[in-house]
Amino acid sequence: MLSSNPTDKDDLPLLGITTGDAAGIGPEVIAKSLCDERVVQSCRCILYGDERVFSSLLQRLKVRLPLRSIPSVEKATQLDAPVCFVHCPEHPMSHVIYGEMDDRLAVNAVGYINRAIDDALYSKIDAMVTAPINKAALRRAGFSLDGHTGYLAEKCGVTDYAMMFVGGGLKVVLMTVHMALAAVPEKITECAVLAKIGLTDRHLRRWFGVDKPRIAVCGLNPHAGEEGMFGEEERERILPAIRTAQFEGIAVSGPYPADTVFNRCKAGEFDVVIAMYHDQGLLPVKLLAFDEGVNTTIGLPFVRTSPDHGTAYDIAGRGIAHPGSMTAAILLAAEIATRLKSASFSGCQ
Amino acid sequence: MLSSNPTDKDDLPLLGITTGDAAGIGPEVIAKSLCDERVVQSCRCILYGDERVFSSLLQRLKVRLPLRSIPSVEKATQLDAPVCFVHCPEHPMSHVIYGEMDDRLAVNAVGYINRAIDDALYSKIDAMVTAPINKAALRRAGFSLDGHTGYLAEKCGVTDYAMMFVGGGLKVVLMTVHMALAAVPEKITECAVLAKIGLTDRHLRRWFGVDKPRIAVCGLNPHAGEEGMFGEEERERILPAIRTAQFEGIAVSGPYPADTVFNRCKAGEFDVVIAMYHDQGLLPVKLLAFDEGVNTTIGLPFVRTSPDHGTAYDIAGRGIAHPGSMTAAILLAAEIATRLKSASFSGCQ
Repeated sequence: MLSSNPTDKDDLPLLGITTGDAAGIGPEVIAKSLCDERVVQSCRCILYGDERVFSSLLQRLKVRLPLRSIPSVEKATQLDAPVCFVHCPEHPMSHVIYGEMDDRLAVNAVGYINRAIDDALYSKIDAMVTAPINKAALRRAGFSLDGHTGYLAEKCGVTDYAMMFVGGGLKVVLMTVHMALAAVPEKITECAVLAKIGLTDRHLRRWFGVDKPRIAVCGLNPHAGEEGMFGEEERERILPAIRTAQFEGIAVSGPYPADTVFNRCKAGEFDVVIAMYHDQGLLPVKLLAFDEGVNTTIGLPFVRTSPDHGTAYDIAGRGIAHPGSMTAAILLAAEIATRLKSASFSGCQ
Repeated sequence: MLSSNPTDKDDLPLLGITTGDAAGIGPEVIAKSLCDERVVQSCRCILYGDERVFSSLLQRLKVRLPLRSIPSVEKATQLDAPVCFVHCPEHPMSHVIYGEMDDRLAVNAVGYINRAIDDALYSKIDAMVTAPINKAALRRAGFSLDGHTGYLAEKCGVTDYAMMFVGGGLKVVLMTVHMALAAVPEKITECAVLAKIGLTDRHLRRWFGVDKPRIAVCGLNPHAGEEGMFGEEERERILPAIRTAQFEGIAVSGPYPADTVFNRCKAGEFDVVIAMYHDQGLLPVKLLAFDEGVNTTIGLPFVRTSPDHGTAYDIAGRGIAHPGSMTAAILLAAEIATRLKSASFSGCQ
C-alpha cells in the first residue's frame, strides 16, 4: 500500500529505462541524467540493458553511479538503491564499437523494450522511458518496427494512440507522423481528428492535471485553408470533428493557421495544439525546446516518454552528448507517474 | 549624381510606401513607424494614399508628422521634408469606417500600388514598401489579385520570383505559397527548385552583401524523406537541383529535415533557408521574429518589402496596432536600397 507522503523514498515512482542501442548516445545521456539531482529527488530508476557495457561506459565517462544489479524488477522494491540494473541482453557483449551498426545491439535493444513492456503491463514499473534505437540497424537485423511508438502500440494491442511532444512551453499532439507529405491529406478524416481530440483531452486531464484542457487544432493548409480557398480539408473534415467534440463538452477550437497558433499556445491561450503532420508539430517544438524536448506516447496502458533525438552515432562514445532531452523525459515520466499514483491513491481516475 | 557620403540627407534612399486598405491597420503602423528615429535616420519616405484620411488618422493617434503634399514623386527630391504625400485615391473619402470592408478603399489601395509600381519601374523611388490590403475586400470589389506578390510580378512581367521572409535571425524563401498542401508535392520540380536556388543566391549577394551565400534547402517530407522511406521528392527532384546548383558554384546544401534546419540557420550555419511550402517557412519566422517579421519579394526589378501581417480589421482604428513589422519592413527596404545605391555608385552589380 502506498503511503501518501511524497517525501518517502519508497513513494517515488519507479521508472523503467531501456538503454536502447548501445552504440549510440542513449546509455551516455541516461548516465548523465541519473546524476542530475532533480532526477534523484523525483524517482527511482531501473535500467534494462547490458551491465558490462554500461559499467564500462560509466568508467569511460568517469561517472560514479551506485548501480545495483537485480535479476528482475520485483527486487527493486526491496532495495534502497536509487538505480537498479536488470541485465538482460540476448547477446551479452564484451565491448561495443560506438557509432557502428551492430545487429546484436539491435536485437538487444528490442529485448530491453519487450522486457520493460511486460513489467509496465503488470504495473511492476510506474512508467517507461526509452533511450533511442536505430531504425536502419533494426531493419538490417530483420526487424520491421519503425520506431518505439508503433511497436509499443502493437505490443499493447491499442490502435487509438498518438505522439505528444512536450517542451519549450508547448504540448503538441501529432495527427500523422512518419509518412510522405503527399499521403497526409487523405489521413485527415473527421473520424481520425475526433479520436485525437478525445485522446488529447483525456491525457491532459489525467497526466497533466488540467481540469478542462483548451485544445487548439491546426489547419492542414496555409491560413487554415482561408475559407476553402486553399483546400477543403478544414471545412469538410477538421471543423466537423471540432464541432462534434465541442458538443461532447471538450474545450477544443480551430482549425487555426499553423504559422501563428504556436505563439498563441506559448502565450497561454491553449494548453495543447494538435498538429496535422510531423514537421508542423515538430518544427515549433524543436525551435523552442532546444535540448529539452520530450516525446511521449498517449493512448498506451502505461506512461512512456523518451528524448526527442536519435542514436546520434556521429557523436556516440565521445562524452559530448547533451543529456537535456533525456533528463526532461525522465522528469516528465516521474511527474506524470507521481500524479497518477496520487490520483489512484485518492481514488480519483 | 549621388554622393558617396551616406550622412547627407539627400543620399538617403527614397522609399515609396503604399498606405494599403485604409480601413485596416496599415496607415496606423506607417504613422507610428515614421516617428521611429531609426526610420528618420535611414530613409526619406513618400506615402501613396488619401491625404485627408491619413491626416485625420494622425490627429486621432495624436501623432505629429511633418507631411508635405506633393503632386508627384519628382517633387520629393526638391524638398527637404522627410515625409512627402502623394494624394492619389480614385475615390477620395471624407472619412473611413475602421474595420469595415469598403469597395472604394479596395479600389484606392490598388491605385496606390499601381502608382508606386510605375515610380519604382522608372527608378523614381529606390524601394517600395506596401501596407496590407484585404483579399476579401479586393475580391468583393472585383479584383482577382491574390495579394501583392503575384500582382507585382504580373505587372512587372516577371515569372521567376519568390517570397522571402526576414526576421528572428532567419531569412526564409518559399518554394510555394498560397495553395492547398495536397497541391504542393507536384510543384516541387527539379527545375523549380533550381530556379529558386539561383534567385536566392543572387539576392543574398546583391541585397544583403553576402559574398558566397550558404543556402540550406528543406526537405518536403518528414526527416527529409529518410532515404526515400517517406516520399521520393527529395531524391528525385530536390537533390538533383541542389547538385546542379552546386556544380554551378552555388554554396547550397540539403535537403535537410525541416524540424531542425531552422535552428542550424539561426545558429549561423546557413545564411538562408529555402522552404518547400507556406507553413514550413512561415512557422519558424513567426515563432522567432515576434512582431518584426518582414515579407520581401525577390525577383522583381525593384526592392519591395512589407510587414508580415494583414489588415487586422478587428483592431483597426483603435490605436493599438504594433508597428514593429512595418518598421522592420521600412528599415530593411532602406538597408537594401542603400546597399544597391552604393554598389551602383561604385560600379558594382
